[in-house]
Amino acid sequence: MEATRHMEATYKLVRNGRDVPVWRQIETDIEVDIQMGVFGPGDRLPSEHELAAKFGVNRHTVRQALAGLAEKGLVHAQRGRGVFVADEPVDYTLDRNAKWSEVEKRFDGGGGEAVLHDCRELPATRQVARALRIAPGTPLIATETLRRAGPGIGTYGYHLFPKVRFDGIDREFVRHASFTKAIAACGVAEFFRRSTWISCRMPRPREAEALAIPATIPVIVMTYVDTDAEDAPILYGHGVFPRHLIRIRIDT
Amino acid sequence: MEATRHMEATYKLVRNGRDVPVWRQIETDIEVDIQMGVFGPGDRLPSEHELAAKFGVNRHTVRQALAGLAEKGLVHAQRGRGVFVADEPVDYTLDRNAKWSEVEKRFDGGGGEAVLHDCRELPATRQVARALRIAPGTPLIATETLRRAGPGIGTYGYHLFPKVRFDGIDREFVRHASFTKAIAACGVAEFFRRSTWISCRMPRPREAEALAIPATIPVIVMTYVDTDAEDAPILYGHGVFPRHLIRIRIDT
Repeated sequence: MEATRHMEATYKLVRNGRDVPVWRQIETDIEVDIQMGVFGPGDRLPSEHELAAKFGVNRHTVRQALAGLAEKGLVHAQRGRGVFVADEPVDYTLDRNAKWSEVEKRFDGGGGEAVLHDCRELPATRQVARALRIAPGTPLIATETLRRAGPGIGTYGYHLFPKVRFDGIDREFVRHASFTKAIAACGVAEFFRRSTWISCRMPRPREAEALAIPATIPVIVMTYVDTDAEDAPILYGHGVFPRHLIRIRIDT
Repeated sequence: MEATRHMEATYKLVRNGRDVPVWRQIETDIEVDIQMGVFGPGDRLPSEHELAAKFGVNRHTVRQALAGLAEKGLVHAQRGRGVFVADEPVDYTLDRNAKWSEVEKRFDGGGGEAVLHDCRELPATRQVARALRIAPGTPLIATETLRRAGPGIGTYGYHLFPKVRFDGIDREFVRHASFTKAIAACGVAEFFRRSTWISCRMPRPREAEALAIPATIPVIVMTYVDTDAEDAPILYGHGVFPRHLIRIRIDT
C-alpha cells in the first residue's frame, strides 16, 4: 500500500499547552484501542515496560493511565500476572421493545431491583408537551428511579407521565418494585419505544452514588418517548447508563 | 397526588467528601434541565440572582456554572439581556442509511469538507475479523479522517477496510475529498449501516483539536459495521461526535 501519511504516528502525545495530562491521553488511547478491538475482552495488555517504551514515557505515567482505566472498570490487574481487559459491556438493544426489563431478563433471577428515589408533580414544558402530544402546562407526574439488573448493572432514570392517566403510579412502583408492573397497574399492558435521542454527559453526584460509579467519568444518556399499543405517548424518559457496563446497540 | 417522597428535593447539592465541585454540580443540573426540556432552545435561563437563590449558593458559583455551560456550547450570554439556551443539536438519524453524507445534505452547499489525517496498514484483530467476517490477521487499511458538514458540525473517525477490496482508498479519499466517493471508486456504489454500538468517552487531544471542541468534555462515540448491497461487510468504523452539536436519533 502506498499510504498517504498526513500524520506521523498513532501515538502523537501532546505534551504542553493542553488541558489534558499525558497519562490521561495514554488512558484514552488505550480505551480507544479497546473500543476498536485492538485489545479484546480477557486479553492481557502489554506490560508497563512495553507501554512505557511505546508511548515514550516513564512507568509511573503508564501506571497512572492503567489506574485510570481500572477505576473506569475497563481493565483489572491480576497480581503478578498483568493487566487484563474487562468483559464487554452488556448490550442494551434499541428497538421497538427497548426497555430495562429486557436487560434484566438476561441475568439469573430475572426481576432485578427497582427503587423509587423521588416523585413529584410538575407542568409539561413546551418540549415535553410536544413529545407527549398534550398541551403545555398539563400536569405531569415525575419519577426518579434506580433500576438494577445483574451485578452492578444499573440505570438511573427520570420519567414524566401525564397525571390524568398515571396518577398514583408512584405507589404502584413502590408496591411492585417494578417499572413495567407499575405501568401495567395504571392500565397500560404493553408499551413500546417510539423515538430515542442519545447523548452523553457527566453524572450528577446522586446518579453516580446510586450507580456506584465514579462521579468523574462520563455516562451515556438516552432521552426517549414510549407509546402504548395504540401509539399514544405514555411517557417521556431520560436515563443514565454507565458506559463501561452498558452500551447501546442498534441493528438496522 | 400523594407523592412518595424518598428524597427531599431536586436540588440536593453535595458539599463535601466528593470529587465534584458545587459549581460543576449546578452546571450538570442545568444541563439535565436542558436535555429534559425544562429549558428549550432560545429560552432565557433564570438570572444569576434567581439561580443563586434556587441553588443556595453565591453568584460567583452560578457564574462558574454558566461559564462551563457556555464553554460546552449549551448556552450563550447576550450582554445585558441574559443567558440563552443554544439551538438543539443536529439529529444524526440512525437507520439503514446512516452515514455522514446524510448529515451533510442538511446544510447549504451540501458537500462539506473531508480531510484524511492518517492512513496505514494493519492486521485484523479477532474482534474486527469477526465483525467483517474475515480471518484474524487479514490485512486491513486503516484511515483516520475529519469530516465536516455545516458550521462547526463535524465528526472525527477511524475506518478499517479489508485491503483486498479497498487498496488505494486513501488516494481516492484525497482525490475526491469525500468518503462516499472514495468507497464508490473502490467499486461499492451503495453501502448500508448494519450494526452500531454507542458509547461515550473523553476525546483524544487530536480529535478535540480537529473538531475545535474543549478536550475536557465527553464525546459520543459510535462503533459500527457497514455492509454493501449484498450484505457483505465493507468496513468497521469508530466515530467521535461532539454532543452539543450532534445527538443520535433512533425511531423504532
